[in-house]
Amino acid sequence: MTTDQLQAYLREVHPRINEDELLQEMERHATEHHVPIIDLESARFLQQLIALKGATRILELGTAIGYSAITMALASADGTVTTFERDETRIRDARTFLQKSATKERIELIEGDAFERIEQLQGSYDFLFVDASKGHNIRFVETFSPYLKRGGLMVVDNVLFKGWTYEPSEAPKRLQPLAKKMASFNKWLLLHPQFQTTIHPIGDGMAVAIKQ
Amino acid sequence: MTTDQLQAYLREVHPRINEDELLQEMERHATEHHVPIIDLESARFLQQLIALKGATRILELGTAIGYSAITMALASADGTVTTFERDETRIRDARTFLQKSATKERIELIEGDAFERIEQLQGSYDFLFVDASKGHNIRFVETFSPYLKRGGLMVVDNVLFKGWTYEPSEAPKRLQPLAKKMASFNKWLLLHPQFQTTIHPIGDGMAVAIKQ
Repeated sequence: MTTDQLQAYLREVHPRINEDELLQEMERHATEHHVPIIDLESARFLQQLIALKGATRILELGTAIGYSAITMALASADGTVTTFERDETRIRDARTFLQKSATKERIELIEGDAFERIEQLQGSYDFLFVDASKGHNIRFVETFSPYLKRGGLMVVDNVLFKGWTYEPSEAPKRLQPLAKKMASFNKWLLLHPQFQTTIHPIGDGMAVAIKQ
Repeated sequence: MTTDQLQAYLREVHPRINEDELLQEMERHATEHHVPIIDLESARFLQQLIALKGATRILELGTAIGYSAITMALASADGTVTTFERDETRIRDARTFLQKSATKERIELIEGDAFERIEQLQGSYDFLFVDASKGHNIRFVETFSPYLKRGGLMVVDNVLFKGWTYEPSEAPKRLQPLAKKMASFNKWLLLHPQFQTTIHPIGDGMAVAIKQ
């Protein structure tokens, strides 16, 4: 069985969701322009976690082209997503795609480095999705998790990093330092007393942490 | 990357949980006696779903040796698990293992066919785990989901059936009819209007359905 077969099966059997066509257009754009977006399995997982928690205040670090922001906004009838992006090309592309989405009024894109623009945040959040520069995950969690409510959910994407977090020697040489850093992040998060964390082998690995 | 490497990594990095030694003893028993028990990844997923929902009234169809019942009871400080098993050898083994668990007072094992012993159920449940005779999943869901509260979670295990639900021709000949039946069940559940269902590629495939 290949992942492609599995992906095709899961796509076939799940009912089409709202804006499936827009999301497919964004998937093609991402492939063509080598923009990393979340896997379909990860998208479904995020949507179900949001539905399960009834999360309506969602914070995202790393908009990219807005695929995950739209995905998360679609999972909640009236939820809002606040999302940070610092790359100018991605901001431009994200704005183009967001304009096509019925969720656009519910997504606030903050331009710039999340650490520098943190004063833009207001109030606390039910759900925090960390999907930005992988080498800074500890700092992202330390800086932004105080904005998460107790009992709120934090999800960190790509924590298995194609398996390189547990087999860093199989990573291309230039990525080995990052793979090791991400492995350290995983151990740090799993032992962090403020979170009850599980790494799920979904997509590229998703850590789901419940804030205590 | 093999699943074994991934399993070893995930076991290594997650903190040891209560009764990890008992669960490992049960895993060895299951391997030796060819008793199907849930995968480690599935166990972690179940535990986190229970924690996320704050589920305290848990119903299980298919105790086997009690591995998933203990796993689920451990995920909640004061939750109770009601679980059905009809096989006499498994009932005996489950009772032996349950005796060794601190959760034993919180687990009620009902002996016999779940359909015939349904009158034993009292009240409604937050969480329903379906892990019994795979060919009867539609009947299980139709019969037992009325006992699930609105907003409650139903989890059905093994819905990918080693990938044979989407590639039934790759299954051993004698299992092909079952693989097809399980594929039909998946489509039926995913389109069922009373549930908001997602199939997650965790373990042998887990369908998670939120009751509307």
